[in-house]
Amino acid sequence: MRIGLDMMGGDYAPAEAVKGVKLFLDSVATDVHLVLIGDEQALTPLLADAQLDQSRYSVVHSSQLIGMNEHPTKALKEKPHSSIAIGFHLLHNKKIGAFISAGNTGAMMVGAIYSIKLIDGVQRPTISTILPRENGNPGLLLDVGINADCKPENLVQFAVLGSLYSQYVMGTPNPKVGLLNIGEEEGKGNLLAQATYPLLKESRQINFIGNVEGRDAFKDTADVIVCEGFTGNVVLKMAESFHDIMVRRNIKDEYMDKFDFEQYGGTPVLGVSEPVIIGHGISGARAFSNMIVLAQRMIESKLLDKIKESFVAVQEG
Amino acid sequence: MRIGLDMMGGDYAPAEAVKGVKLFLDSVATDVHLVLIGDEQALTPLLADAQLDQSRYSVVHSSQLIGMNEHPTKALKEKPHSSIAIGFHLLHNKKIGAFISAGNTGAMMVGAIYSIKLIDGVQRPTISTILPRENGNPGLLLDVGINADCKPENLVQFAVLGSLYSQYVMGTPNPKVGLLNIGEEEGKGNLLAQATYPLLKESRQINFIGNVEGRDAFKDTADVIVCEGFTGNVVLKMAESFHDIMVRRNIKDEYMDKFDFEQYGGTPVLGVSEPVIIGHGISGARAFSNMIVLAQRMIESKLLDKIKESFVAVQEG
Repeated sequence: MRIGLDMMGGDYAPAEAVKGVKLFLDSVATDVHLVLIGDEQALTPLLADAQLDQSRYSVVHSSQLIGMNEHPTKALKEKPHSSIAIGFHLLHNKKIGAFISAGNTGAMMVGAIYSIKLIDGVQRPTISTILPRENGNPGLLLDVGINADCKPENLVQFAVLGSLYSQYVMGTPNPKVGLLNIGEEEGKGNLLAQATYPLLKESRQINFIGNVEGRDAFKDTADVIVCEGFTGNVVLKMAESFHDIMVRRNIKDEYMDKFDFEQYGGTPVLGVSEPVIIGHGISGARAFSNMIVLAQRMIESKLLDKIKESFVAVQEG
Repeated sequence: MRIGLDMMGGDYAPAEAVKGVKLFLDSVATDVHLVLIGDEQALTPLLADAQLDQSRYSVVHSSQLIGMNEHPTKALKEKPHSSIAIGFHLLHNKKIGAFISAGNTGAMMVGAIYSIKLIDGVQRPTISTILPRENGNPGLLLDVGINADCKPENLVQFAVLGSLYSQYVMGTPNPKVGLLNIGEEEGKGNLLAQATYPLLKESRQINFIGNVEGRDAFKDTADVIVCEGFTGNVVLKMAESFHDIMVRRNIKDEYMDKFDFEQYGGTPVLGVSEPVIIGHGISGARAFSNMIVLAQRMIESKLLDKIKESFVAVQEG
């Protein structure tokens, strides 16, 4: 199993990416071979210092860099030798089985959509976040920002994608799917939520349990919570800010520590035909290591095959 | 100054309402005369037990009750002797200067809109929530649920209403107004946020500081945060749930205690022509007392006059 990692993406690259690779290789005994994509000159001394088992990784040189604020489409077109462009090239040609980057999110999305394509039947890819829960088994919220305006059918697809991810990668059997709304009863909410509810209700691909509210985000009311990316992004950033408040207030609590979203590493781009993971710009060593673990799980669980089968079934059914 | 209080509204009425009246009368030395609207038979023994100064309140009997789940328009029409219907009648006829109820929210909204009317120029009334901030000076978020689908002009009006409320009732000089969004730069966000930004930017009635994100909700980036009621309601209920988590985790912190939203009592209905305050169904004594204080401030600050002047200025300008 070969996993590609963009070593140049993120605010602390490549140093934290190298540390993350070391953390992964030192702690996880697997047959994963890491393909490290980055500037050889910058990487070589760092990798030498890290004293890694050289049989477990190889380096692919990238001579260009896409900055965090560059225009995604333009940058990808004009920089074919950037780590992100090379990563998608390798993924497209099956040289790697998953690609991870904490670099320019827009460029990652453009690469995912145009270089490796959407799964047949999927209208829009989506990104998600873990929701820490007191029972220890995390929930999933999607979309969290890529799709600020949605149609009801988009939300239904997010529900299917999130449900499969929750089941096969997060290990939640028969995940309960809830629609984020501002009231419990059917018929409540804005026009989008009102139109989405009956579609979710009639879907045979998910275990829909009805509306959930803001207060249910960190409860086990639903395992997968679906919303458009505007509200989802506000929820995610507000949850992240709670961790900052806990740190500032010097409040120590095992559960509240789980609001340190950095530890989760990144979000899969669900709906594209190969495993792609986008990391947070501020990703540190632990985040990089956890993203490699996530990529491995996405490959081992054959999540992409499950998603493809599911969308074929809908189209034929 | 006469303030009307629905003694029959809320889950713990009338007992908690009576306790709230006592708390207010015992702790606040003012010329406020309370008009307590409720079932005399239920109230008389409770009021006698409370040993209140009888010169500071009077009772108006109501013989009907609007339940929490009744259809608002129907209930108000069919129950003219309910405490809510009587309250609006008294408010309309200037027998009271403000009306407070923790009863059926829908009936309160219908009463506010149809019995005392919107201020000229206001398209939709709005409700808000306090946002606890570490600097001690709370922020304001609106709308939080009455307007699930909004047009850009609605958000601009909420900004003006929230700004005036923040300035005259909450005491924030020249409040900074932010647009809740999923990115900092102009042009980010969903279609609504994109269309609202330039309107807020060109408004001369507010001190617009640009986009704010979910992470800014409890910071002093903006004093007034504007959004449609869907996202606002999710934010509010999620913030409320954080207090529940703190209590369950036995985390004690002076700042986190401020997430106990019950203490804030209720939200004014901004945009209607007289002071109306809607309380939370679970309102206890402290919430009732705080709502009376809030009503008093709304009257004393002449907030309604400020709002009327402001909207007249817009219509003429």
